[in-house]
Amino acid sequence: MTNENLDLRQRKFWGWGFASEVTDAVASDAILHALHDRLDLPIQDFGPGPTISEIELKSPRVPIPASLAAICSDMTWDRAEHTYGKNLRDYVRGFERHFDNPPDFVAFPRTEDELTAILDWACTGDVAVIPYGGGSSVASGIEPDVGDSYRGVITVDLRHLNQVLEVDRASRSALIQAGALGPDLEAQLKPHGLTLRFYLQSFRFSTLGGWIATRAAGHFATMYTQIDDAVQAMRVLTPRGIVETRRLPSDGAGTSADRLFIGSEGTLGIITQAWMRLRDRPTFRASVAVPFRDFEAAWQAVRHVSQSDLWPANCRLLNPTEALLSGAGDGSTSVVLLGFESADHPVEPLMARAAEICASFGGLVPAEAMQGRSATDANLSGAAGVWRNFFIKGPEFKEIFTRHGILRETFETACTWRDFPGLHAGVIDAATRAVRAVCGTGHVACRFTHVYPDGPAPYYTVLAPAKKGAELEQWAAIKAAASDAVLAAGGTITHHHAVGRFHRPWYDRQRPDLFAEAMRAAKTALDPAAVMNPGVLIDP
Amino acid sequence: MTNENLDLRQRKFWGWGFASEVTDAVASDAILHALHDRLDLPIQDFGPGPTISEIELKSPRVPIPASLAAICSDMTWDRAEHTYGKNLRDYVRGFERHFDNPPDFVAFPRTEDELTAILDWACTGDVAVIPYGGGSSVASGIEPDVGDSYRGVITVDLRHLNQVLEVDRASRSALIQAGALGPDLEAQLKPHGLTLRFYLQSFRFSTLGGWIATRAAGHFATMYTQIDDAVQAMRVLTPRGIVETRRLPSDGAGTSADRLFIGSEGTLGIITQAWMRLRDRPTFRASVAVPFRDFEAAWQAVRHVSQSDLWPANCRLLNPTEALLSGAGDGSTSVVLLGFESADHPVEPLMARAAEICASFGGLVPAEAMQGRSATDANLSGAAGVWRNFFIKGPEFKEIFTRHGILRETFETACTWRDFPGLHAGVIDAATRAVRAVCGTGHVACRFTHVYPDGPAPYYTVLAPAKKGAELEQWAAIKAAASDAVLAAGGTITHHHAVGRFHRPWYDRQRPDLFAEAMRAAKTALDPAAVMNPGVLIDP
Repeated sequence: MTNENLDLRQRKFWGWGFASEVTDAVASDAILHALHDRLDLPIQDFGPGPTISEIELKSPRVPIPASLAAICSDMTWDRAEHTYGKNLRDYVRGFERHFDNPPDFVAFPRTEDELTAILDWACTGDVAVIPYGGGSSVASGIEPDVGDSYRGVITVDLRHLNQVLEVDRASRSALIQAGALGPDLEAQLKPHGLTLRFYLQSFRFSTLGGWIATRAAGHFATMYTQIDDAVQAMRVLTPRGIVETRRLPSDGAGTSADRLFIGSEGTLGIITQAWMRLRDRPTFRASVAVPFRDFEAAWQAVRHVSQSDLWPANCRLLNPTEALLSGAGDGSTSVVLLGFESADHPVEPLMARAAEICASFGGLVPAEAMQGRSATDANLSGAAGVWRNFFIKGPEFKEIFTRHGILRETFETACTWRDFPGLHAGVIDAATRAVRAVCGTGHVACRFTHVYPDGPAPYYTVLAPAKKGAELEQWAAIKAAASDAVLAAGGTITHHHAVGRFHRPWYDRQRPDLFAEAMRAAKTALDPAAVMNPGVLIDP
Repeated sequence: MTNENLDLRQRKFWGWGFASEVTDAVASDAILHALHDRLDLPIQDFGPGPTISEIELKSPRVPIPASLAAICSDMTWDRAEHTYGKNLRDYVRGFERHFDNPPDFVAFPRTEDELTAILDWACTGDVAVIPYGGGSSVASGIEPDVGDSYRGVITVDLRHLNQVLEVDRASRSALIQAGALGPDLEAQLKPHGLTLRFYLQSFRFSTLGGWIATRAAGHFATMYTQIDDAVQAMRVLTPRGIVETRRLPSDGAGTSADRLFIGSEGTLGIITQAWMRLRDRPTFRASVAVPFRDFEAAWQAVRHVSQSDLWPANCRLLNPTEALLSGAGDGSTSVVLLGFESADHPVEPLMARAAEICASFGGLVPAEAMQGRSATDANLSGAAGVWRNFFIKGPEFKEIFTRHGILRETFETACTWRDFPGLHAGVIDAATRAVRAVCGTGHVACRFTHVYPDGPAPYYTVLAPAKKGAELEQWAAIKAAASDAVLAAGGTITHHHAVGRFHRPWYDRQRPDLFAEAMRAAKTALDPAAVMNPGVLIDP
């Protein structure tokens, strides 16, 4: 099989996007200059990114079986493309032309029957299986590094299972195949006036199945933030067969079957499709950016808004560094981005009350927002628009950063409001010390991606000069210091980036031991040959 | 140990409330007359309820061990009180003085250490353990009918673990012991200006731990309806030891540990305490009752409201029979009860928009509600108030109904909006046929207890003449017909009444087989001696 036969645009084997897409030189220059000018980061030249002819892979340990030949590929491009996710370590290793653990081959099933045939073959042949959606994992969740106890390892790419199969307009729900990328499913929902409204940063190259498997968090900053709440029913192919749950708006019959598989990160089986709860496309919108001179006043305002039952769609706090970095501020103020949207009713009264809360904490609220006449295009202009564009471009910048010696990576958590001051101080301190120790200089910025009545989800961005050839060690030291500080202060090792292989050491400390034993037993019941994504979440 | 030593008011061993409470004769007469006058039901006299001297129990199979003597009781009252929950079968069997499967003794631990000692003793002695909160199960979830494969069976009553241990005001959370009854925990939260706001019908005699173990649904008709969403962290004592989860406002690290135990109905261990998400006490309120001449128009209006993002606290639909039964209507109209509440902002604009939606579907909206000037005391007066009082009194009426030959029981489900018309027609048809076949005449009323953007939670009440001595057969026939119809139409066997022992036949059909195997494996990992609530959810 050749890639041409797939009749899909080929994706980059290193980087973000389609291979045909040329990096936007103007945008690249702009971001590099911004980092240099605003954060005083040196721009280095580590050379060009890899080309496919430079990549040498070890020979496949298991050949493609004849029965699966029509849907599998062991071409270098396909194997390289499926070797890494999209975190800093992935970019650096790819940039260094190191592809040490590629899958032996990649399967592209078109039907559930083909998927079943793949799992049957893997189980009987002692071959590990990596379920693969859009490949956007930043936690090494799809990296075929499964050790030597398997005869081989294959990646199962679900890109062909990308259809919206059925729409139930009255119940505002749709049955969607797990391999549908964000743009795929939204395009198919649009004619029905419906939207999943799950615009996470990886939207273009992440899939419904991946979101569910990793408990991704999306567009909404409050209330129904995680994909968990949008799952109405699921169909999961385990090595022992299908698990299909009932379509229900809510259920009280025993432990939730859906919740066992939501967040299971491919360790129990492969999600093939799900009935999802959708929304009408919003027609009323309001948004505003509120600067605060004081960071604590800003987060206290956000806390108050999170506990107000106003449930803004957007409620992001940028600390001064984050605001400076993205261009939404000048580095002297924190900025709170507030947004409301509705398909049913005007949202100005909600915005006016949220603005009032911000003002009561010293927020410098634009006058029109206080009067409920906030700019409806603030999403696309002003500080909110600047930040939004920076956010959307984020994944594309990673190639640039890698090539120009910017050590840039993020980590995120969630904690209670009570724990937040201690966590934030501890994390900033630990991460900053580590950055200085291994990079000499650098920055640690913070924003809230989501907020809940009982606590925020802080998200940290590290930006520092990379030392060529030492990036992995640099990041390992910073990440360990930050993660230890997160756990010590009561946070979680991940709010929405998943555990994968990379977060395992901290997840293992955070997770109750007996819960791990229960999950291991459940896995053995569903995956007795232990072929499903070994090393993720639980050891076989 | 005597009950006096417990220093707690003794609860009835049959019926609802404290033994010292005298049945309200005026209210009893009123409800019986109402049923007779409104629904033409014959009022019979089956005689007085049981007194403790009439109850004979089989001798305990296992004696209280000396090590647990201080916290255990094998007195007849205690054993009888813990023999049944509160469904129709429980009332009828108790009324008939049949207490065939009492616990051999009842333990009342005061500390987690004592609880551990009880579980250790049970595991080594092959004695089944029934975790017991308030005893309000209507699904035989706490009935010690565990078969002959155990040496004995004991009930563990958590009433002494009833303290709010810690309040985190900033995060609006509290650490609460699992045995706290609704009024207990609200009284302890009130000084902090906080409330769990989980006013389910069994509020007086159900506990936090029971709510979590059974996925109860409470006060709010939309959004965060179930206790599931209010659980921030849990502590569960399994036979193998403690599982304690981390306090987090949200988490994306693997399958949710909390969700494994939420809804586990005592089969994996005993919830000892939980950090719960609370609310500020509401200061803004509005409510209204909207009659509809047409049932379909009424539920379409409710569907629209459920999809509007207005998130009313109350959004109950009563069909004409339900409205008649409760006195909220005259039997010619359906009634939609709408309520909004907030601790932060006036709710009139939300009410006005919800009322506008109802009016657009033909709802006869009171003029003041359309103008956003709804009566703030509508909760306590008018149709909404009448219905609310009827709802609160519900549990107390069960003694009266049993003694006066009214076969009265409920069942509930949830389904998608698309499935609702078929489910409703099928259930009404099947239940009505069964009622007529076994009772000659009777009524099947319907209301929505909760509504979601993708579907309602319909709740059915059966009222018919009981035939003395044949009530169990009568109800078994009606329940089977109704439950079969629910499952056939895509519903769940329970939205918030739990599975227990009574719903097992239908739950087993509804639940994916491989999920059952995974849960059985998880249970074996945590409860290798299989002593925890055997027969509920999973067979050992």
